[in-house]
Amino acid sequence: MSKSADDRRLSRKAYEARLPDVRAALVRMQSELKSSRVPLILVIAGAEASGKGDVVNILNGWLDPRGFETFAFHEPTDEERERPPMWRYWRTLPPAGRMAIYAGGWHADALREDPRSARELAQFDAMLRRFAWFEGQLAAAGALIVKVWLNLSKSAQKARLLELESDPRTAWQVSPDDWKSHRDYDRQARLAERMRNATHQSGAPWYVVEAEDPRARNLAVADILLARFRIHMRARSRLAAARGRRARRIVPLRPAGLRRLLSLPLDSKLSQAAYEKKRDKWLGRLNRAVREAGQERRSVVWVFEGWDAAGKGGAVRRLTYAIDARDFRVIQIAKPTDEEKAHHYLWRFWRHVPRAGLVTIYDRSWYGRVLVERLEGFATEAEWRRAYRELNEFELELVEHGMIVLKFWMHISKDEQLRRFRDREATLYKRHKINAEDWRNRRKWQSYEIAIGDMLSLTSSRHAPWHLVAANNKRHARLEILKISCRQVEAALGM
Amino acid sequence: MSKSADDRRLSRKAYEARLPDVRAALVRMQSELKSSRVPLILVIAGAEASGKGDVVNILNGWLDPRGFETFAFHEPTDEERERPPMWRYWRTLPPAGRMAIYAGGWHADALREDPRSARELAQFDAMLRRFAWFEGQLAAAGALIVKVWLNLSKSAQKARLLELESDPRTAWQVSPDDWKSHRDYDRQARLAERMRNATHQSGAPWYVVEAEDPRARNLAVADILLARFRIHMRARSRLAAARGRRARRIVPLRPAGLRRLLSLPLDSKLSQAAYEKKRDKWLGRLNRAVREAGQERRSVVWVFEGWDAAGKGGAVRRLTYAIDARDFRVIQIAKPTDEEKAHHYLWRFWRHVPRAGLVTIYDRSWYGRVLVERLEGFATEAEWRRAYRELNEFELELVEHGMIVLKFWMHISKDEQLRRFRDREATLYKRHKINAEDWRNRRKWQSYEIAIGDMLSLTSSRHAPWHLVAANNKRHARLEILKISCRQVEAALGM
Repeated sequence: MSKSADDRRLSRKAYEARLPDVRAALVRMQSELKSSRVPLILVIAGAEASGKGDVVNILNGWLDPRGFETFAFHEPTDEERERPPMWRYWRTLPPAGRMAIYAGGWHADALREDPRSARELAQFDAMLRRFAWFEGQLAAAGALIVKVWLNLSKSAQKARLLELESDPRTAWQVSPDDWKSHRDYDRQARLAERMRNATHQSGAPWYVVEAEDPRARNLAVADILLARFRIHMRARSRLAAARGRRARRIVPLRPAGLRRLLSLPLDSKLSQAAYEKKRDKWLGRLNRAVREAGQERRSVVWVFEGWDAAGKGGAVRRLTYAIDARDFRVIQIAKPTDEEKAHHYLWRFWRHVPRAGLVTIYDRSWYGRVLVERLEGFATEAEWRRAYRELNEFELELVEHGMIVLKFWMHISKDEQLRRFRDREATLYKRHKINAEDWRNRRKWQSYEIAIGDMLSLTSSRHAPWHLVAANNKRHARLEILKISCRQVEAALGM
Repeated sequence: MSKSADDRRLSRKAYEARLPDVRAALVRMQSELKSSRVPLILVIAGAEASGKGDVVNILNGWLDPRGFETFAFHEPTDEERERPPMWRYWRTLPPAGRMAIYAGGWHADALREDPRSARELAQFDAMLRRFAWFEGQLAAAGALIVKVWLNLSKSAQKARLLELESDPRTAWQVSPDDWKSHRDYDRQARLAERMRNATHQSGAPWYVVEAEDPRARNLAVADILLARFRIHMRARSRLAAARGRRARRIVPLRPAGLRRLLSLPLDSKLSQAAYEKKRDKWLGRLNRAVREAGQERRSVVWVFEGWDAAGKGGAVRRLTYAIDARDFRVIQIAKPTDEEKAHHYLWRFWRHVPRAGLVTIYDRSWYGRVLVERLEGFATEAEWRRAYRELNEFELELVEHGMIVLKFWMHISKDEQLRRFRDREATLYKRHKINAEDWRNRRKWQSYEIAIGDMLSLTSSRHAPWHLVAANNKRHARLEILKISCRQVEAALGM
C-alpha cells in the first residue's frame, strides 16, 4: 500500500476522539438551522459500494432525528411517472429551517439510466441540464446544497464487494448487477464525472470524498457539511443586510414587449348573434381537441393573466364549458400559504402540476413573480430578474414532458378598467369583486405596463408563447381565447 | 304513462324560467361559502345511466369554476393502494370555504366491488362503516355534506341506455358492463340501498332524486344543495354563539386510567453497563423485526407522548438506531400550519400516513386533541369528547390496513420534571429546549393527569394499546420502549 493511501487511514482511536465534537457541532448546526430561513439539502452520492447508505445511517445517528428527513429514490410511482421528471424531487424538498438527506440524490436516477447510444446520451445530458436548473434555482433562492461524491478506486471497490459478500449479514447487499457494474468501472466513472461536471455550479458544487477508509470518509462528510453551513450562514447575514432596499425606478429591460402591448388595438366589434354562432363552433372543436389530448395522456395548462377586471374569470368560465368537469381543475393563485412561503416560490406551482391527461387552468400564475412581486418589492431585483429564466425553465420542463402550455394576457384600456370598476361598485352582486387594492394597482398602471412588456419579451418562447388578447370587448376576447387555444392544442397534437 | 310520472316532467320553458334565479343563488352561495369556515362536500351518486356526469357538468356550468373542484375516483394509484383505503378521499377534501363535487363519491368505489360471497359482503359492510366514520367525523366538525342519489327505474334505465346507444356522439358511453349491470338491476338496487342505509346519518343524509326527467333532476339537485346550505349556515351561526364558553372544571371521564397512571412506580435502577448490554441485544432484535415488517409491506407507526422533558426526543433517537435511515420519518407535531387549520383536525395526520413498509415516528401526535386542546380550550367540550371515538376509528383504519401502531406515554414525576427543567436552564446547549410554555403547562400538572388518565382509559384498544413507561430513569425507559416495541411488532407479525 502506498504511503499516501496509508495517510488517509484514520485509527479508531483518532476517530473516536473527534466524535464528541463533531456530533455536538452537528446538533448545534441543526438548532441554528431551525431558527433560520434556510432549507438544507445534503446529497450523498457515489460509486457502487462506496458506502452511501452507511454514511446516511451514521449521520442519522449523529443528528437529532427530529430535524431532518432522508430520501432515496427508487422506481418512480405511477403518480410520479405521470408528471414531469423533476416533480418527484420537488415534492420531497425540505421547507425553510429543515434538512433533507438524499441517499444517491436525483443523480442516481440519471446514472441508473446507463446511457449507451448517442440518443440515450442526449437524454442523459438533458436530465443533467434539468438537475442543474433545479439546483441552480434552489441555490439562488438561498437553499444550502451540499453534494458529496464518495469516490472508490476500482481495486478498493472490488475489495469492498468481496468483503460484503463474505459476511452473511451483508452478503444480500451485493447483487450480480454490482459485479457487472464493477467490471464496467471505467465507463461508469466517466459517466459519473460527466454528471458531476454538468451539475457543478456556484451554490451547488460537488465535493469528492475518498471512501476507502470508512472512518475518514464519515468525518470528511461531516466536516464538509459543517464548513459549508458556516460559510452559508455568514453569506446569508450579509445578504439579509442588503435586502429591503427600496426598488429603483421601473425601467423596461427589453422594450419590444412594451411596444407590442401599447400597439394592440383594443376595441373590436362583435354582435351577440355572431358571437354565439362562432362560439359554439369553437367550443365543439376545442372539446374535441382537449379530449384528443387527454387520450394521448397529454395535459393542457392554461395560464390567465391580465389587468384587474380584464375578464379572466368570465373567460375561464366559458372555456370550461368545453371540458368535462371531471377532467379539469381551476387554480386561483392568491397569496401563498405559510407552507408555501417556507419553500421556493416555484414549489407551489410544482405541487399542482396535473397528472398526465388532465387540464389545469391557472387564474393568475407564476408570473406574479415578475409583475406584482417586482412592482411591490416582494421580490428583490436579483430575484425577479432571474425569475424570467427560471419561469422559462419551468415551462420548458412542462412542455418537454408533453404538456401543452397556453398563456394569455388579457388586455384592456385604462378607461375600460375604470368603467368596469365603477360598474362593479354600483352593482350589488359584483361589489365583492373590487377592493382598495384594485384601485391601488390601477394607480401604478404605467409601471405595470413596463413589467408586462418585459414579461412578454422575456418569457414568450416557441414552446410556450404569450398570446395577447384585446379584451375591451368581452365577446371578442372570449372568442379569441377559444380560437387560439384550439389552434395551439391542435397544432401540438398534429391534428 | 301514469299521471304522477307525468307530473314530474318539467317543460323546457318552465326549466329555463327558473334557471336565472337558481344560477344566481348558486353563485351567491359560493360567495357566502368563501367567507365562511365551512368546507362543502357535494356527492352526486346514483344508478347506472342516471346522469351523474351530466349533473356534474351542468352544475359546473352554473357555478363559478374558481370556487370548487370536481373529483371522480377510478382505479387507485399505487401510492393510494399503499395506504389505508380512506387516504385517497382524505387527500381530496376541500379546505374551509371551498367546495368539492364528487362524481360517484367514494360510494361508487364500494358499489364497484359488487360483493357476491358472504366474505365479500362483510368487506363491503366494513367499507361502508369506514364511509360512515369518515362522513360522521367531517360533519361533526362542521363540514356541509350533501349526498344525492340519482334514482332510475329499471325501465327508465333501459330507455336511457338505448337512447345513449342510438346517438353516435354518446354511444361510447354504453359498455357491455352497463347492460350486464342493467340485467342485474334488482340486486344492484338492493346493494345501493344497503349502502345508503349504512351511510345515512344526521349531518350526512342521503337525498334520493328521480333522474328520469333530466331537467327536473338538475333543478332538484340544485334546490337540495341550496336548501341544505341555508340550513347549515343558520345552524353554524347558532353554534358560533355557543362557542367560546369557558371550559368547565376538569373532571375525569373514566377514572381507571388516572388510577393506572398514579400507581405507576417511577424509579427503577439500571446500571450503564447492564443497560448497554441489553440495549444492543434488543436493538438487534428490533432491527430484525422492523425489516421483516417492511418485507411484508407492513408499516410501523410509533406514537410518543409524555410530559415535557420526559425524554421523548432521546427515546426516539435511540429507537432510530435500529432502523435504516431511508426507511423512516420522524414527524414532530407542533402547531398546525394554516393549510392544516383549514381542514379537519385529523387531516394533517392522514396526509403523513406512511406508504406500505415504511416507518413513521410521531413525536407528539393526534392525542394533542384530548390533552392540550382539551385543557387549553382550543377544542370545545363536544369536540374533545367525541375525539376519543374518532381517534380510535382513525387508528383502527391504520391497523385494518396492516399497520402496526405502538403508543407510548412517557411518565415522570413532577419533581423529576423540575430537576430536568432546571438542568436545561443551567446548560447552555439545552437552553433552547425550555420555554415559558413548559412552565405554564407544569402548573396544570393535575389537570393534565386527569386528561392523560382519560386518554389511557378511552383510547387503549386491543389493536392499539397504550404503553405506560416509567421514565424517571432514562435508561430504564429507553430499554422498556425497545422491549415493548420489539414484542408488539413480533407479535403482530406472528414471529
